[in-house]
Amino acid sequence: MSETPDSAVQTATAAVRTYIEQHRAAFLDDLAQWLRIPSVSAQPEHDADVRRSADWLAAALRETGFPEVEILQTPGAPAVFAEWPSGEPGAPTVLVYGHHDVQPAAREDGWHSDPFEPVITDGRMYARGAADDKGQVFFHTLGVRAHLAATGRTAPAVNLKLLIEGEEESGSPHFRALVEEHAERLAADAVIVSDTGMWSEDTPTVCTGMRGLAECEIQLYGPGQDIHSGSFGGAVPNPATAAARLVAALHDADQHVTVPGFYDGIAELTDAERELFAELPFDETEWLRTARSGATYGEAGFSTLERIWARPTAEVNGIGGGYQGPGGKTIIPASAMVKLSFRLVAGQDPQHIEKRVTDWVGEQLPAGIRHEITWSAATRPCLTPLGHPALQSVVRAMSQAFGTKVRFTREGGSGPAADLQDVLAAPVLFLGISVPSDGWHAPNEKVELDLLFKGVETAALLWSDLAATAV
Amino acid sequence: MSETPDSAVQTATAAVRTYIEQHRAAFLDDLAQWLRIPSVSAQPEHDADVRRSADWLAAALRETGFPEVEILQTPGAPAVFAEWPSGEPGAPTVLVYGHHDVQPAAREDGWHSDPFEPVITDGRMYARGAADDKGQVFFHTLGVRAHLAATGRTAPAVNLKLLIEGEEESGSPHFRALVEEHAERLAADAVIVSDTGMWSEDTPTVCTGMRGLAECEIQLYGPGQDIHSGSFGGAVPNPATAAARLVAALHDADQHVTVPGFYDGIAELTDAERELFAELPFDETEWLRTARSGATYGEAGFSTLERIWARPTAEVNGIGGGYQGPGGKTIIPASAMVKLSFRLVAGQDPQHIEKRVTDWVGEQLPAGIRHEITWSAATRPCLTPLGHPALQSVVRAMSQAFGTKVRFTREGGSGPAADLQDVLAAPVLFLGISVPSDGWHAPNEKVELDLLFKGVETAALLWSDLAATAV
Ligand SMILES: [Zn+2]
Ligand SMILES: [Zn+2]
Repeated sequence: MSETPDSAVQTATAAVRTYIEQHRAAFLDDLAQWLRIPSVSAQPEHDADVRRSADWLAAALRETGFPEVEILQTPGAPAVFAEWPSGEPGAPTVLVYGHHDVQPAAREDGWHSDPFEPVITDGRMYARGAADDKGQVFFHTLGVRAHLAATGRTAPAVNLKLLIEGEEESGSPHFRALVEEHAERLAADAVIVSDTGMWSEDTPTVCTGMRGLAECEIQLYGPGQDIHSGSFGGAVPNPATAAARLVAALHDADQHVTVPGFYDGIAELTDAERELFAELPFDETEWLRTARSGATYGEAGFSTLERIWARPTAEVNGIGGGYQGPGGKTIIPASAMVKLSFRLVAGQDPQHIEKRVTDWVGEQLPAGIRHEITWSAATRPCLTPLGHPALQSVVRAMSQAFGTKVRFTREGGSGPAADLQDVLAAPVLFLGISVPSDGWHAPNEKVELDLLFKGVETAALLWSDLAATAV
Repeated sequence: MSETPDSAVQTATAAVRTYIEQHRAAFLDDLAQWLRIPSVSAQPEHDADVRRSADWLAAALRETGFPEVEILQTPGAPAVFAEWPSGEPGAPTVLVYGHHDVQPAAREDGWHSDPFEPVITDGRMYARGAADDKGQVFFHTLGVRAHLAATGRTAPAVNLKLLIEGEEESGSPHFRALVEEHAERLAADAVIVSDTGMWSEDTPTVCTGMRGLAECEIQLYGPGQDIHSGSFGGAVPNPATAAARLVAALHDADQHVTVPGFYDGIAELTDAERELFAELPFDETEWLRTARSGATYGEAGFSTLERIWARPTAEVNGIGGGYQGPGGKTIIPASAMVKLSFRLVAGQDPQHIEKRVTDWVGEQLPAGIRHEITWSAATRPCLTPLGHPALQSVVRAMSQAFGTKVRFTREGGSGPAADLQDVLAAPVLFLGISVPSDGWHAPNEKVELDLLFKGVETAALLWSDLAATAV
């Protein structure tokens, strides 16, 4: 008598869990080793660390069993590619995307421990990259081993590919070229992005889209050097004032972005989409606690979830000019600087936004203020159709691992998923187990170990489900 | 046959010049020694240097011949007081004011040489404090010696007092209390402030007033830590944006300051005053070169000289928040900071301005942005009547030293002169030989040696003229 599909899944799940339990400690030791490498792609002094991180991951993937592992060089930081063919004719091909570089972190930013010396406390692992993204890349190593152990296979049920880039936290400047160059080797029926989060520990969710990102730095130059504010104050333009006015002019009183053409091409939210958002157990007080913020604030006419998931933004990430040391210094500063980032939603084209903002900045500045605007590589927004069969596979695997209903979210953050979608012509799915309190890009980033192992389980169950599903 | 007053002055001038020529080299050596002491009052790590500077000056004044020299302690940096009684009954008493502390300076700010290792090149001495204010304090030492040599006196023709404070560049927080405490010893018929400049090398001028100054630092707090601009961007208030909006809201489109009540009590410029300003050989191109600026910019309806001398301002001296390092960091910063300074004119009360600005700042900020505003000690504006006899003495001494007509200016900068005026009930006069290109508060500050010695001459001639004038 053969098992029903459901009981087969139960058996597989039990086997997966047993395997994970046996390898849990070694897995965490290995992950901690990787997290000790400060692979900060935005800081040139860490170039060698980013390369070391790629080498470390390549070795770990070979150790995992991937027969083909290769460092893919770029003009910037290297990516890691790995492939494990299924061996079964007609097996679908899946490409897992993640990144091995991390955000800058310094102990004095408010970390309770060294950001590059992982600490496990109360079921959490604290380290830069614990959640974004090394932890979420690494769960696929134990995931595929558990998948093999539970199914008795010697190769995965799908042709499994991994592409783990090294420049995501720098805006993935060479990622699109990399994907284009290796498009044939990367070809897949579906892309699984493991670089997002879920609603909460109690409400597992699958993300269906990410915002895009355009980022610039604007340098403003006034006097040829700092000049005395008594001798000259009130009679020449001040670049710090110009910087402030630029930032202030970015939004109108309703917090709409004022740059002409900014909203061109956006697909407005449907009522159905707004209802799906509204169904989520959103607790504003709790959300504000996670945001470490005292109040919500944003574009008039939209809820908080709509603002962070489905509306584009203009945000100041950094501003600086003049004297910032202790005490006072009565100068008109020689220069000032603004770092802006724009989150983009489906329908917005980063190049179009960059051009519109560049034009607008030039129009805002008075005579006597020179400026330079520098754009970092942009990231396109992306959105996956809710009904796609591969998305349903992810939902099933995740429901099984978590033992509960899986809902849908979007991701306010940005990743190069859209490049994969564009170049590989494959649907992009998201499998992430991070929660909002994980502190991405902030001090004391952590990952919840329970969720990390649910991620391992989901990955272990997903490959069989996908192989059984036409994708 | 007694000399006519004019020829007596000629003889005295010649004697003064001979004496100066003989002591020129030693004077510059001594001044250089003083300039090597980095007496930066705004930086706590230089506290000992400021004290060392006071001790050095006290010794130099004893060496000059002042029979009474004393370090006056304050809760902050010490001042130096010196007194040299005339010995003649009925001689007027004059108090010279200056300061021995200096602005911060670091080689990497753009100095061509160590700011605290004076260099003489092309008739200029480059060092922090060369013009503001050690050079202009120090010319009084050679000045009084030359006065004695030229007149054959053993004590000055006036009861000469010096008060050289140590906190001017920190806003003179304890100066008023110091003057109040020692009001009896400081009592004078006129105050000579040597901490200003003149129009140009070719157009010697006497300043008749200074703007006042109120300074604050505003700390703005948003999220409890830097948070991810993808996860939260567009839905919580950003303190860097709030800082920028605060600065942008300070002025209207005509560059009038918008803070309600800011212009209360100001005496508007008379037509006669505007004409005196307009008579000066103002070359906007040249002025812009000195200002190292590409364009003039300021309050509608006023000329550049009116803007810097007779109109109050609101200026940003520093702004900072978020990530300012290389590359990008997609955060909503936890905090931001703005340093503002307000130049004030006669009729404006600093306490009133502080209250109005404090109230206004509180009204500007959205929910979710906390703030702290800290005011430094303020400086009151001051203005001297054009017709005062002691002012005419200064004009005569200066005309004689420079051999040309002396005109009138005001000073856009600020000093605690008004406290002396208030507490001592004495007119405040200005004797300064610095020129706008001297780079006060900027890198490569210098003093023109020719002008420095004209300052010595003026001081040497002034005491006899003042003694002969009812002040
Ligand atoms: Zn990431
Ligand atoms: Zn000064």
